[in-house]
Amino acid sequence: MISIDQALQIVLESALRAAPEPVPLADALNLVLAENIASGIDSPPHDKSTVDGYAVVAADLATGTARLAILEEITAGDVPHSKVKPGSATRIMTGAPIPSGADAVVMIEQTQIDETAVRPMVEVFDSPLRVGENIMPRGTSLRVGETVLSANQTIRPIEVGLLAEIGRTEVLAFRRPQVAILATGNELVPANRVPAPGQIRNSNGPMIRALVEQAGGVSNDLGIGRDEKEALATLVREGLNSDVLVLSGGVSAGVLDLVPEVLEMAGVETVFHRVQLKPGKPLWFGVKRQPSGNCLVFGLPGNPVSSLVCFELFVRPVLQKLRGHKPSGLERQEGILATEHAQQGQRPTYFPGVLSIEGARREVRTLNWQGSADQRSLTEANCLIYFPPGDRIFTSGTVVPIFLL
Amino acid sequence: MISIDQALQIVLESALRAAPEPVPLADALNLVLAENIASGIDSPPHDKSTVDGYAVVAADLATGTARLAILEEITAGDVPHSKVKPGSATRIMTGAPIPSGADAVVMIEQTQIDETAVRPMVEVFDSPLRVGENIMPRGTSLRVGETVLSANQTIRPIEVGLLAEIGRTEVLAFRRPQVAILATGNELVPANRVPAPGQIRNSNGPMIRALVEQAGGVSNDLGIGRDEKEALATLVREGLNSDVLVLSGGVSAGVLDLVPEVLEMAGVETVFHRVQLKPGKPLWFGVKRQPSGNCLVFGLPGNPVSSLVCFELFVRPVLQKLRGHKPSGLERQEGILATEHAQQGQRPTYFPGVLSIEGARREVRTLNWQGSADQRSLTEANCLIYFPPGDRIFTSGTVVPIFLL
Repeated sequence: MISIDQALQIVLESALRAAPEPVPLADALNLVLAENIASGIDSPPHDKSTVDGYAVVAADLATGTARLAILEEITAGDVPHSKVKPGSATRIMTGAPIPSGADAVVMIEQTQIDETAVRPMVEVFDSPLRVGENIMPRGTSLRVGETVLSANQTIRPIEVGLLAEIGRTEVLAFRRPQVAILATGNELVPANRVPAPGQIRNSNGPMIRALVEQAGGVSNDLGIGRDEKEALATLVREGLNSDVLVLSGGVSAGVLDLVPEVLEMAGVETVFHRVQLKPGKPLWFGVKRQPSGNCLVFGLPGNPVSSLVCFELFVRPVLQKLRGHKPSGLERQEGILATEHAQQGQRPTYFPGVLSIEGARREVRTLNWQGSADQRSLTEANCLIYFPPGDRIFTSGTVVPIFLL
Repeated sequence: MISIDQALQIVLESALRAAPEPVPLADALNLVLAENIASGIDSPPHDKSTVDGYAVVAADLATGTARLAILEEITAGDVPHSKVKPGSATRIMTGAPIPSGADAVVMIEQTQIDETAVRPMVEVFDSPLRVGENIMPRGTSLRVGETVLSANQTIRPIEVGLLAEIGRTEVLAFRRPQVAILATGNELVPANRVPAPGQIRNSNGPMIRALVEQAGGVSNDLGIGRDEKEALATLVREGLNSDVLVLSGGVSAGVLDLVPEVLEMAGVETVFHRVQLKPGKPLWFGVKRQPSGNCLVFGLPGNPVSSLVCFELFVRPVLQKLRGHKPSGLERQEGILATEHAQQGQRPTYFPGVLSIEGARREVRTLNWQGSADQRSLTEANCLIYFPPGDRIFTSGTVVPIFLL
């Protein structure tokens, strides 16, 4: 049986990012760029005023005061028509282009319009200006040809804004992986049906679908596969059209655990079956090699807690890698055990736990957990607590690694 | 001018959660529940086997060994037909219902089928069992009528699974707020157009749209409103049908800063205009009271950095509250200044910064920032650094509050 680390290395080596695709900017949030982005523009595109005021010749204000003829008014979006010469000024708004001849802008608060004059005049008081004052020169922020974003950067709202500014309404990016989900088992009925005796509702399918969406994948829920080879094979073949196929159930040693056999019949190469892990030992992993792009196939154990743990340890990092992100899995932190925990057996264990933060103190307690089928107490968990293999009592106060759910 | 804290208190008091709505489970991920959820089922729905093996009468294994007649085989999804009596056993799979009469399950690994017998027999070796062993009794995980989730819990993938298990394919939850976005300014053209002289592309609209989606709102981008009262009023009236209307630009003191006037004409009550904040002072906030539900209206300054800071400080907490979450805004942490920073003036300042983590050391540096229009250097930022008002040199090594972008 392979270790968790070996299994993770194998699944990540099998996960090959698809070629990047052009993505409309409106759909690009949280994707990873696959190209360096060069600006096609200078920004600002013109010397621009950073205040509301008057564009002037700075030399006119050597003494701090002046009386100047108003030539025109330029708001943002306008273009100036007149050249500013000594003795004249142009009313200008924030963001508007500086007229030729002007080399500074005096703020509106330092001026007053002379209502009595025949021609419009402005009085400037107490405002000596240096050349360039209140002007942002063309290209200050970015220049034509300059690389402004690099391949492998994540597109956040700020980057969306910058891409819009430079007119990139489409970018090369790594698309979200398509993930097919198939719950298996004769005992399962859809959530909207009343189970007959012996049956239960399919809860893993909806949970895995939500996990996939949370991880930035695009989910395709294939529903429930009954434990019959042909029916299962049909659904599996459909699922293999995706980047990843996640099955739950059917990978243990029961007589109806048909999943590995059906997958092999469908041409999926078994890579490993069973991992030194609790819960989640029966995990099955294989790869379907095909010209349209490989499909990674995970057979998760049918118990909800095992399913969740296997998803977080192996499927989430794969989805991160396929998206171009660092495959770091859940965020790792540390907590202080609030209760004693008896660890038994040779499998490293991820135990559902509750982290509570009081000031600087980060206490974790293990949940009163009824075994790996207990979805209910799992809803109280906000982390998985890691215990290494070996029989050992972890006393309260021990610092343990935790992984935030 | 009001303070940041006063402004935040006012906007949050104005943000009233809409009545909860029924939401299909498939759309409920990350929403906040608005009802207590009681289980309609016992789980497991029957006493069930937790292993693959044989359901037996424990007393038959008092010595640890037995030879038992096999009655039938029950897989998950089946129902038992025969009562297990002393001397007999039923082959059973994990999850399948325990037949009447049986009170323990012996693991398959401890058994061997007797191939030589006329009737099917199983030999059990070395497996003394206590009553109840390898059986999970009906209702262990949850019971009919029991409250399993509470109003105000966030629906994570685990909760999606539990809701599916108990057949709740629709839940009462707080829906995502509808947020209309309107960029204003004669200088703006859409990102897919080449700006004429004096024009720039609309970058705030796409950035705010991405911020809204990141914050879990549903965006409705109204595009660009020119600085003309009637055109602006038409777009504003459309935007007022949303829970929140976010405008950018047009709230400063320029001659074409028509936004406050147009909003008032449309019946939006001014709540405040200008906040003691840098950048972002011109922020405008108002409320349109209407029978269909109030619309909160934010007029963000047109500069990208001001827009971003105002969104993070005021709009994000409002969206969090409308969704039923705690309105905590961006995550606050601390960092150690790596470079000196000279703070000036009476406005508290949020300065774009870069946090870099080396081991336990969390260094932040301020960005070389060309003023609030500089979208480009903002793409290097991963946090906002807070500096309190007053003229002061913050030497390198000072611990400062930061807010993660």
